[in-house]
Amino acid sequence: MKDKLLILSGGMDSVTMLYHYQKEIALALSFNYGANHNAKELAFAALHCQNLGIPHVVIDLEFMAQHFKSSLLEGADAIPEADYAEDNIKSTVVPFRNGIMLSIAAGLANSRGLQAVMLANHGGDHATYPDCRPGFISAMDAAIGAGTDSEVCVFAPYTGLSKSDIAKIGAELGIDYSLTWSCYKGQETHCGVCATCRERKQAMADAGIEDTTVYQA
Amino acid sequence: MKDKLLILSGGMDSVTMLYHYQKEIALALSFNYGANHNAKELAFAALHCQNLGIPHVVIDLEFMAQHFKSSLLEGADAIPEADYAEDNIKSTVVPFRNGIMLSIAAGLANSRGLQAVMLANHGGDHATYPDCRPGFISAMDAAIGAGTDSEVCVFAPYTGLSKSDIAKIGAELGIDYSLTWSCYKGQETHCGVCATCRERKQAMADAGIEDTTVYQA
Repeated sequence: MKDKLLILSGGMDSVTMLYHYQKEIALALSFNYGANHNAKELAFAALHCQNLGIPHVVIDLEFMAQHFKSSLLEGADAIPEADYAEDNIKSTVVPFRNGIMLSIAAGLANSRGLQAVMLANHGGDHATYPDCRPGFISAMDAAIGAGTDSEVCVFAPYTGLSKSDIAKIGAELGIDYSLTWSCYKGQETHCGVCATCRERKQAMADAGIEDTTVYQA
Repeated sequence: MKDKLLILSGGMDSVTMLYHYQKEIALALSFNYGANHNAKELAFAALHCQNLGIPHVVIDLEFMAQHFKSSLLEGADAIPEADYAEDNIKSTVVPFRNGIMLSIAAGLANSRGLQAVMLANHGGDHATYPDCRPGFISAMDAAIGAGTDSEVCVFAPYTGLSKSDIAKIGAELGIDYSLTWSCYKGQETHCGVCATCRERKQAMADAGIEDTTVYQA
């Protein structure tokens, strides 16, 4: 039944979820929140929705770039060139970003009579980003249920998977990951050295996918 | 200690909270979400922040008027002229509005090192608005705590009070309620017949305040 709204960035994880759950997704929702890589991501988000005939709404959250503190909002030079395990990667946290996105998604879903909001958070995000962890997802599900008279819930089926697990699902579904964007720097091509580029390479290698992404490094 | 962010609409309840907790409030945050009465409210919100020397940020959420379903977003004629007890008043619900506002407030508070977000929901709202009830407030507090590594919490000290109780606090503090806005229709003067106008009149009468609001009816 098509009763779900997916938060779609245009990265590997949410694009995989879009194809994986296409029969249940009535609407995809993307956000432009002023991150360096938003323009690159959003073009791919729109492309995949068009491919699948899934309606796509883009909401502008320009207040984040103006008022929020994160290296993700400060240009390519502010992005650490390191693995997620490094401590300086915490500068890429956008405070409560997933809470804001899930809340807006819940209000939009409720306005349209949809019953679930989907987020493609996964296990690899847990250490760095508090708003990707299982405890956050279940707490947000409870808050959205309480605030909508139980009309909307959160469905985040990749919470316990690794990015490599997700890439394996994508490989089975035949997804072309060259039509997704990861790099936090958001330049012409993927930098290849920021945390999310490193994770992207590793996940594709683990899943046995030929990585045709053009990397600078 | 000035470590809190208040969500300030410019209505009686949040203006009372602003004066009541002024020593703890580092920042007031208002939203323009396209409701009929936003312009009227926001002018008063700005006025009181200026009076008290409290910094004030206004964030535009124009996507709500564009994508969300509520009579509050559809012009004065869509507003029911009835008490909150009437069933048609549910048309004024803006889906998950307080969840969205608390989430954005939490992200902004965390960006600025503030430790709590305050909301002036009260007991009179509980029947109509699910996102004003005690269970929602405690669930949202848990979600914001989980999503910010326990750096931000929700503080909603009027949750158990009635609007009349709040008006009594305002009377003791000497607040001039003619410098607040309630009416959902958002016309030149208060209509006097919508649910929030009726509640405003009753609260001031209960608190023994002379109501100098100009009402159309």
